[in-house]
Amino acid sequence: MTEKKWAYEDLEIGMVLDLGSKTITAEEIVAFAREFDPQPMHLDEAAGKAGILGGLTASGWHTCSTYMRMVCDAFILQSTSEGSPGIDYVRWKKPVRPGDVLTGRVTITTKRRSKSRPDIGLANCRGEIENQKGEIVLELENTGMFRLRHPEATA
Amino acid sequence: MTEKKWAYEDLEIGMVLDLGSKTITAEEIVAFAREFDPQPMHLDEAAGKAGILGGLTASGWHTCSTYMRMVCDAFILQSTSEGSPGIDYVRWKKPVRPGDVLTGRVTITTKRRSKSRPDIGLANCRGEIENQKGEIVLELENTGMFRLRHPEATA
Repeated sequence: MTEKKWAYEDLEIGMVLDLGSKTITAEEIVAFAREFDPQPMHLDEAAGKAGILGGLTASGWHTCSTYMRMVCDAFILQSTSEGSPGIDYVRWKKPVRPGDVLTGRVTITTKRRSKSRPDIGLANCRGEIENQKGEIVLELENTGMFRLRHPEATA
Repeated sequence: MTEKKWAYEDLEIGMVLDLGSKTITAEEIVAFAREFDPQPMHLDEAAGKAGILGGLTASGWHTCSTYMRMVCDAFILQSTSEGSPGIDYVRWKKPVRPGDVLTGRVTITTKRRSKSRPDIGLANCRGEIENQKGEIVLELENTGMFRLRHPEATA
């Protein structure tokens, strides 16, 4: 048993979870880039303008990590998540810029019981983040591992 | 022209770049998790032991971001990189734990000129990170965009 809101059994295919909104700042963009992705367009507006992204732009990994935090707060921390074996794909569709208001959602697309671990199920999640203009800036799909609420029940 | 070491023309299919090594600490794992992925197994050894990962484990996004930094230092910052449209896949194959010594390499797997931007070429890169036991902990493939050294030359 679990006290969590979402165990594997509670995840329904087609379920959509609203991840709320988060405004991204220039300071956050530069702080992430200094540590993990110090390319000029992630550090400096003028350097960004000189390249094809057209201005200071968040590292794609920063956008992914911001999505992860939004998913944690709205979903994963209230679930029986046991992590993820990987990501099916990530598409960085538009630049993320200082002041952008990012709004997210996650959709459960498929699910199945683990063959090797009867207490675990796997759910595929499609995540999307859009900006204040309604443009999708990030799309990704990954597989999450979730403990079952009643692993003793038959599949 | 460019003063950079690697423009699109310099990237050869099959080329392997050594990314050197980086030791990951418990402090780094927890700091990243607090900001971006505050799941219990990324914050606390005991919570990690209670789950299927078996101890304090880096967020997969932290491992990806650490890989990005290694790629920047060894390759991208000395290249004509203009960023990336996305990631083909990420596989988190083994947990990354405090004290792990991560060693990386990147292999150019395919390349092609952009149809819409004659000054840009795209190269697919397969990244691999292994730990001090020789186990692959991260594998991913992504597409990088690189300016040409001589865009006026025919393809």
